[in-house]
Amino acid sequence: MKIIIAMDSFKEACSALEACEAVAKGVKEVYPDAAIELVPMADGGEGTVQALVEATNGTYVEVKVQGPLGQSVQAKYGLLGNGTTAVIEMAEASGLHLVPLKERNPLLTSTYGTGQLIVDGLNRGIRDFIIAIGGSATVDGGTGMARALGYRFLDEQDQEIPQGGGGLSQLAKIDTTNVHSALKEARIKVACDVTNILCGPQGSAAVFGPQKGATHEMVDLLDANLNHLDQIIQRDLGLQVGQIPGSGAAGGLGAGLLAFTPSSLEPGIEIVIQATGLKEKMSVVDLCFTGEGQMDFQTKFGKTPYGVMKLAKQVSPMCKVIGLSGSIGHKVEELYDLGFDCILSIAPGAHSLEELIADTQTNLTYSARSISQLVK
Amino acid sequence: MKIIIAMDSFKEACSALEACEAVAKGVKEVYPDAAIELVPMADGGEGTVQALVEATNGTYVEVKVQGPLGQSVQAKYGLLGNGTTAVIEMAEASGLHLVPLKERNPLLTSTYGTGQLIVDGLNRGIRDFIIAIGGSATVDGGTGMARALGYRFLDEQDQEIPQGGGGLSQLAKIDTTNVHSALKEARIKVACDVTNILCGPQGSAAVFGPQKGATHEMVDLLDANLNHLDQIIQRDLGLQVGQIPGSGAAGGLGAGLLAFTPSSLEPGIEIVIQATGLKEKMSVVDLCFTGEGQMDFQTKFGKTPYGVMKLAKQVSPMCKVIGLSGSIGHKVEELYDLGFDCILSIAPGAHSLEELIADTQTNLTYSARSISQLVK
Repeated sequence: MKIIIAMDSFKEACSALEACEAVAKGVKEVYPDAAIELVPMADGGEGTVQALVEATNGTYVEVKVQGPLGQSVQAKYGLLGNGTTAVIEMAEASGLHLVPLKERNPLLTSTYGTGQLIVDGLNRGIRDFIIAIGGSATVDGGTGMARALGYRFLDEQDQEIPQGGGGLSQLAKIDTTNVHSALKEARIKVACDVTNILCGPQGSAAVFGPQKGATHEMVDLLDANLNHLDQIIQRDLGLQVGQIPGSGAAGGLGAGLLAFTPSSLEPGIEIVIQATGLKEKMSVVDLCFTGEGQMDFQTKFGKTPYGVMKLAKQVSPMCKVIGLSGSIGHKVEELYDLGFDCILSIAPGAHSLEELIADTQTNLTYSARSISQLVK
Repeated sequence: MKIIIAMDSFKEACSALEACEAVAKGVKEVYPDAAIELVPMADGGEGTVQALVEATNGTYVEVKVQGPLGQSVQAKYGLLGNGTTAVIEMAEASGLHLVPLKERNPLLTSTYGTGQLIVDGLNRGIRDFIIAIGGSATVDGGTGMARALGYRFLDEQDQEIPQGGGGLSQLAKIDTTNVHSALKEARIKVACDVTNILCGPQGSAAVFGPQKGATHEMVDLLDANLNHLDQIIQRDLGLQVGQIPGSGAAGGLGAGLLAFTPSSLEPGIEIVIQATGLKEKMSVVDLCFTGEGQMDFQTKFGKTPYGVMKLAKQVSPMCKVIGLSGSIGHKVEELYDLGFDCILSIAPGAHSLEELIADTQTNLTYSARSISQLVK
């Protein structure tokens, strides 16, 4: 009997590893002798660094960087157990949670700190990067990040333009003279699950600007500025990035990574599956537990449980895949048609969200035991 | 594939039949061609009449009887589908819910109405009775019930004593001259899951009197009166009933039924299993769903899911037995050691009791589908 436990975190309740351990505890009560493998998972969103570090027995690096508005921020990124891959969440350095509500202004916020994290990795000899780009405070097209890497964004007078999306209108020229020498050797995988392009009504300013503090006028200005940046990138770097699906992710950081670094945009769950070696581990499995805090029809849009299930069914078609969730929601039934064998809430009855959060691990253990018992 | 669905009711949410139907709906999505049998269940408590009528395609009889304090009460009992067995809940005629809180007084309350229901059955030619005795308002030792059947409880002056537990101190003699002529042909099964004897610290007055409105002084008086009744029964009827486990049930109605009618006390779930023919139906079953509103370690004390599970495992040891419950509680794990394969709450996440009650059938259907899918 081989059992894989590949849980995502349960937001506010427990990490992916804690969720895996809680499930394993229940499984072991029924299958004390089974080969049980714990693979903490993420989907390229919040918790990706922690899950990958935990899944690979990696380590953390702490670096002081510039926050979105230039303030000093203590940011953390991960080194995978192989010692040669860094995993970075851009939100650690440039996230919306770092900017107080009334100071949110994407004309000014910069991805510079994210670039500093990459530089720190490069300086440690790291060449393989995984970057999770969710939760950004910025609409700067990744120019802040590029600046940290040595790019210079100059105006007509060869002066550096101000940081942030607002200054991009003054951009006349991109200077690559001082770009970090190791950057060209880097291989950067960007976890990206949105398909927004850089500009226009489905662009990063229009769709994501308002939640970062942009007024209607600011959205128009930022959209024009990103369009201008796209033109200059085409002219100076010879790259057309603004139409690539995902280029509009994270305030145009998607486009910036494509333009300024050796990057590819990939679904977050695919990157995590690769980094954790889940596919190889899944090759002979009888039973697979996955899940996260919430599961519903949206789970099929690249969420961890869906990715784990698809992989399991592809690699070991006869295995049973069980989703355990704090809450099962709208049209979760759709996931059965897509391959799930069972999806259940771990809630033991009428309880408040606070109670369920407090009891998440206990409830996971109980449900895992019940399910294991049933399929025995 | 043969599947038995033997649910109890979910209190305040749905009847046993509705619960069975909700589960069946989910099961059929996975096993459209399986032989699925619905057996609404009860354990001899509230809902026993409805479950047995529904399980056997029986009918109801409505009778105007005397309530606990002599008021007129419209009471209902069931005739099973065989047409020859009546099923009576004593609470319909003599239940605590029929007495307003401030009028509760077990010195006065009588089981007379329950006796009237038996008489109504006898007069229809019914000889087989099932009587569920939970929820009584009375501590009259079943003398009210007996009176309706023709027994006369007389004082030293050969006058009938007052109804209720308070009058029993005046009892000098039991007169059987006018007892209903058909009573001796009756076979009465009394659903009884308590082991209290008639008198003493574990007797019906001491243990159940207070919840029926008895003060400390009333408890002492009632206990003495029941003891006196027990003596007179021994002397006049030649029966020793007061020491039989269960004689103290329902304010001594247990003792009264044993003394005044051809009765046997049996565990409620056993009576229901027999009446529904569940054992025969269970003879070749692959999957069995049971459950009720709440499941916890107390489920093992004669509750429906436990009885169904024990029967299933006895008759079809290889079958899987699944308990579905609104709420799973304290030490529910104990039930696994006793034989359950799986016990899960149908709660889909953080919801209030009101929401869960409103969604019970939907949630049952979903959970039944999930479980069916998993064991397929």
